[in-house]
Amino acid sequence: MLERFKADQNEMVFVESKSLKKISKEILVKEGMRPSFAASVSEALVAADMRGADTHGASNLIQPYVDWIRNKKTNPDPILRKVQDFAAIANFDADNGLVTGFGKEAMNIAVDKAKKFGVGVVTIKNAGHSGAIGTHAMHAVEKDMIGMVMTAVNPIVVPTFGAEQRLGTNPIAVAAPAKNEADFLFDVATSTIAGGKAKLVELAGKKLGAYTIAEPNGEPIKDEVSLPDMTFEDVLFLPFGGTRDSGSHKGYGFAMIAEIMSGILSGCESLMINNSRDDPRGALNSHFFAAFNIAAFGDVEKFKTNMDQMLIKLKETKPSPGNNRVIYPGLLEREEEIFRIKNGIPIHKNLVEWLDSLSKQYGIEKIHRRRG
Amino acid sequence: MLERFKADQNEMVFVESKSLKKISKEILVKEGMRPSFAASVSEALVAADMRGADTHGASNLIQPYVDWIRNKKTNPDPILRKVQDFAAIANFDADNGLVTGFGKEAMNIAVDKAKKFGVGVVTIKNAGHSGAIGTHAMHAVEKDMIGMVMTAVNPIVVPTFGAEQRLGTNPIAVAAPAKNEADFLFDVATSTIAGGKAKLVELAGKKLGAYTIAEPNGEPIKDEVSLPDMTFEDVLFLPFGGTRDSGSHKGYGFAMIAEIMSGILSGCESLMINNSRDDPRGALNSHFFAAFNIAAFGDVEKFKTNMDQMLIKLKETKPSPGNNRVIYPGLLEREEEIFRIKNGIPIHKNLVEWLDSLSKQYGIEKIHRRRG
Repeated sequence: MLERFKADQNEMVFVESKSLKKISKEILVKEGMRPSFAASVSEALVAADMRGADTHGASNLIQPYVDWIRNKKTNPDPILRKVQDFAAIANFDADNGLVTGFGKEAMNIAVDKAKKFGVGVVTIKNAGHSGAIGTHAMHAVEKDMIGMVMTAVNPIVVPTFGAEQRLGTNPIAVAAPAKNEADFLFDVATSTIAGGKAKLVELAGKKLGAYTIAEPNGEPIKDEVSLPDMTFEDVLFLPFGGTRDSGSHKGYGFAMIAEIMSGILSGCESLMINNSRDDPRGALNSHFFAAFNIAAFGDVEKFKTNMDQMLIKLKETKPSPGNNRVIYPGLLEREEEIFRIKNGIPIHKNLVEWLDSLSKQYGIEKIHRRRG
Repeated sequence: MLERFKADQNEMVFVESKSLKKISKEILVKEGMRPSFAASVSEALVAADMRGADTHGASNLIQPYVDWIRNKKTNPDPILRKVQDFAAIANFDADNGLVTGFGKEAMNIAVDKAKKFGVGVVTIKNAGHSGAIGTHAMHAVEKDMIGMVMTAVNPIVVPTFGAEQRLGTNPIAVAAPAKNEADFLFDVATSTIAGGKAKLVELAGKKLGAYTIAEPNGEPIKDEVSLPDMTFEDVLFLPFGGTRDSGSHKGYGFAMIAEIMSGILSGCESLMINNSRDDPRGALNSHFFAAFNIAAFGDVEKFKTNMDQMLIKLKETKPSPGNNRVIYPGLLEREEEIFRIKNGIPIHKNLVEWLDSLSKQYGIEKIHRRRG
């Protein structure tokens, strides 16, 4: 993670992951969420925290999730309703529930289909927030499969050459198992920056990088810049690549792929047409999950050995000036996980206060701080 | 296509597509290719020409393909040998044949599996050049499916923060059917520029865009630049995104996805390990094909109507200053196809001369020029 996304370390408190998971679940239940669903949501949130994906962890999302339940922007007791089920594929309606809570189940259905057919695909429509989609992709890796997840969300990104928001930050994640190396775990927004990260930059009082957002007329801003003083949802974000020359039309295309595979394939209108910002139910996202069964294609051990060879070759690449090493997607996440297993999860002291106040209100156990 | 890729129009001759297909096939046969395979190769090449993908058309590839047959860098009589076949997936060995010629067959196998199972996946290892992978993806669209194709090729791209070539230009293509709009057709290199396009820029005596290549020490070059005076295969190309700030780590990640889904899943070592530049047989690429059967997920007509709505919304986006319109992947390709159906395919006069000389040598019919 770049420095600009990091909060001031003096303001962070280290907490136990088990305790964060427990209190997140209990608060969601007290707010009206079905206990089994609250457990799934909390598990996915804290898995993201453990990998350092703070934007998608409980550390950043438990407060908005509580807000959304209170404002009826998400259904706290959703049913994953089957719309289609045909051999290796299935399509579901999420009943406006958080896919943070349905992600593991969806990937496990894709995995079960991949066991039978070599590949399995699940789409979900009418869904809430996705959580960290890389976390869902990793559930395929646990079963020696490649996991792929995409999400279509509300538009805040301009297409290349455009001056109006048309695309979501539509993330794409792919995860694949290695042998001794960290598993490959790629999980990115197709915008230059994820919405949650842009908010973290703002909170930390820092600047966005070059080519992250556009002027109101659509021109890419080539310098570091503060978030403009306007409603966050109205800022014109750029597709990754930033400009046509360095490939923004490709970032734009990948955002469209997520829109098509998640939104249109699952039977929604595109969020460009049916923008849920105006919908009182809140986000109406859609999702795509695929599992590829490595054993159906060939030998799993050979696959993992070849993954290790490739990942080591990448790690050992001579770095360019100013960089001390080359990394691959999943390496920092694994390193952070090892660190956090030992040291706990850093969360902002304001969040600790908020959690403590809810603990008192609901009469539940306070979150465990690590000893300093 | 950007201006820098266009050859001087005075040096171009318009020819009939049927005639270009016929002569390409006949030359490949005379050079030793099996007639049925030569027909498939020529069909795919000219389909790319028709869409304006000149780098991957006969206009740019028939000469190197003849060279590769003569230098035994490709097998002119290859058998697509089944390695694995399990329900919705299959894995093949291409016997070092051009996937330009096997692409339609591979996608049709994926399509047949998707008819039965909702999704079909085919991987191919030990293969030659891919041709325009978007052309293969479009064979799924003809059957009302979404097509996805990826390819892993020899490394010429540096990873983000790196100073050594580790990744191919590994292209990814996705195609999806629209109703009245041009079909969605996304087909890009995961490097800032495709190798073939860089060569065209050089031929046209023009410059590469900003953030296309790196200095020999790995530093991204931020200005327009001529190709350095060195072996093309030794130039350090950048992943698309160009720099970390504008998202090169995402271009790098997508290149790895193509490497994993094509190369490692099909049972090859990664080309990072087993670089075929040193292999006398020439390219040993690998490929991934997937077809997603829209009818299994929901209603095909609704899908296409929703596609149209989205594509029209994109086309009608207000452009940013200096741009006269917003386009979507597939729109220019369709417009070029309509133009070329009417006017023929522009090919360089030097290529016409070369074709004429081979026609004479082999006693086959000369290529048909369009009337001026």
